[in-house]
Amino acid sequence: MNKFPSKEDLEEAFEAIAPYIHRTPVLDSQYFDDQVGGNVYFKAENFQKAGAFKMRGAAYAVSKLTDKQKKKGVCTHSSGNHAQALARSAQIEKIPAYIVMPSNAPEVKKAAVKEYDGQIIICQPTLAAREKTLEQVQRDTDAIFIPPYDHPHIIAGQATAAMELLDDLTLDFIIVPVGGGGLLAGSALAAHYFSPKTQVIGAEPSGADDAYRSLYSGERVKEHQPSTIADGLLTTLGKLNFEIIKTHVKEIHTVSDSEIIVAMRAVYERMKVIIEPSCAVPVAVLLKHKEKFKNKKVGIILSGGNIDVSNLPF
Amino acid sequence: MNKFPSKEDLEEAFEAIAPYIHRTPVLDSQYFDDQVGGNVYFKAENFQKAGAFKMRGAAYAVSKLTDKQKKKGVCTHSSGNHAQALARSAQIEKIPAYIVMPSNAPEVKKAAVKEYDGQIIICQPTLAAREKTLEQVQRDTDAIFIPPYDHPHIIAGQATAAMELLDDLTLDFIIVPVGGGGLLAGSALAAHYFSPKTQVIGAEPSGADDAYRSLYSGERVKEHQPSTIADGLLTTLGKLNFEIIKTHVKEIHTVSDSEIIVAMRAVYERMKVIIEPSCAVPVAVLLKHKEKFKNKKVGIILSGGNIDVSNLPF
Repeated sequence: MNKFPSKEDLEEAFEAIAPYIHRTPVLDSQYFDDQVGGNVYFKAENFQKAGAFKMRGAAYAVSKLTDKQKKKGVCTHSSGNHAQALARSAQIEKIPAYIVMPSNAPEVKKAAVKEYDGQIIICQPTLAAREKTLEQVQRDTDAIFIPPYDHPHIIAGQATAAMELLDDLTLDFIIVPVGGGGLLAGSALAAHYFSPKTQVIGAEPSGADDAYRSLYSGERVKEHQPSTIADGLLTTLGKLNFEIIKTHVKEIHTVSDSEIIVAMRAVYERMKVIIEPSCAVPVAVLLKHKEKFKNKKVGIILSGGNIDVSNLPF
Repeated sequence: MNKFPSKEDLEEAFEAIAPYIHRTPVLDSQYFDDQVGGNVYFKAENFQKAGAFKMRGAAYAVSKLTDKQKKKGVCTHSSGNHAQALARSAQIEKIPAYIVMPSNAPEVKKAAVKEYDGQIIICQPTLAAREKTLEQVQRDTDAIFIPPYDHPHIIAGQATAAMELLDDLTLDFIIVPVGGGGLLAGSALAAHYFSPKTQVIGAEPSGADDAYRSLYSGERVKEHQPSTIADGLLTTLGKLNFEIIKTHVKEIHTVSDSEIIVAMRAVYERMKVIIEPSCAVPVAVLLKHKEKFKNKKVGIILSGGNIDVSNLPF
């Protein structure tokens, strides 16, 4: 098993990616403070380069490659924000990025990968086809596979969002969405090393609740049939991610799609910022469990803002 | 005629409203920098309290009332952001606000006024009915009329957005939307007094181009039949506003509704922030006249973000 990233690994990631990312602003909102009766701080990773926190892990993983590895380029399979983030990180390093995308990936995501000079390889929309196509790409190009979440460099990179937040503020809680678990594992490590009194809580759609079930059963759920509007959180937890979450996260809460949509709309109307459905999941947890956060200082990582604005769920 | 607000008036407004408004952040965007080949800075008044810069003028006008006047409360007619801003300013001062709104005002705007404890008086959707109803409200309540733009306190209050921007940055240009002319007149005075090398440019929908025609003919257009998606810019220029604009603004550019929508969508997709159509007008002017802004430092006042997010024009 990969070892957990250390405090020094997180500090190294923080330094390494600083030139390649935005230090995103922290937003607040009278409306959400009033709703909860506490103080809520929103880390605006929807303003991050390539529109999501995924840029942090991808930039760090790419920065850790040797010059020889960089020459060969990087590859991954992704229909979402990791695809854009890896393409952008490779573009910055001026190295090739080969992105395997399912044929049903939204045009807007494909366009973004192309804009960042990523080379798209289309495959059938199944995990088996994605993995097989990626293997072929690796054989053809010798490019280095950068996975979306189950990797210590990715986790250390994602940790830097919570590190920045904890650098700015003393918090009782941080609420973080969980899909593959890169952001949740990284945030939990960040709190553990730099602010041990801050409790990190996972937020998951009830239609893709593998992390919830994994945490409370102690056994990692490896397959499920997700059904949720939160299209960035469909995947199951990574192995290393689960080990870290099991050790450092005490609570994961689930919310329904209708709770997600209400929270998303409140962010649009009250904060005037664009978030994707996955990003509304921790906001929905905040609103569902107001009593828990009363008189507390709560951080929420607004994970991303990549959405087709002509097709909103309201 | 009212005198132009002086440098000292603007400084007083700046101090007076500071406790009641957000000092809004300045956003930047690689995308818009690349589009223009310059540096573009967005003053995010869409994040302002009550969702628009109008809070600045309303807060200052209310702060200038005597205690005796305050007791009587304030009134206005507005279907838009001034209604919300005045209700919110009155709520802060714990005084009544009577808002005459046309029967066709969007529900979302009425709800916002109610949320701020404003008392709504519905009238027929004509200017004549609005003015007549307001007169009746004034007779009934003795409340003080706070007009939306044609008033030196309103202009001095709106000037503070540009003052903050010029306090943060040295700019070659500031592009400002123009409807009644409160923000444009205020911004032009701010540049004149605090950064005379900064040129303030007006941005207007071609479907409501009275300010454009007024500036270039030298005669204030007092009536027109506006037709534009930019619903915050339908009104004609105020008298004092025109005098200030004639003196301190050299250029107003117009843009079509389709140019406004393209600019609005680019802000949503690239900057992940919500703006209303009126607010996209200066962005459209930026994109239409790229060559003018090449290698320049350009400020844009993102005037507001009050829009029904379930009814976007894309």
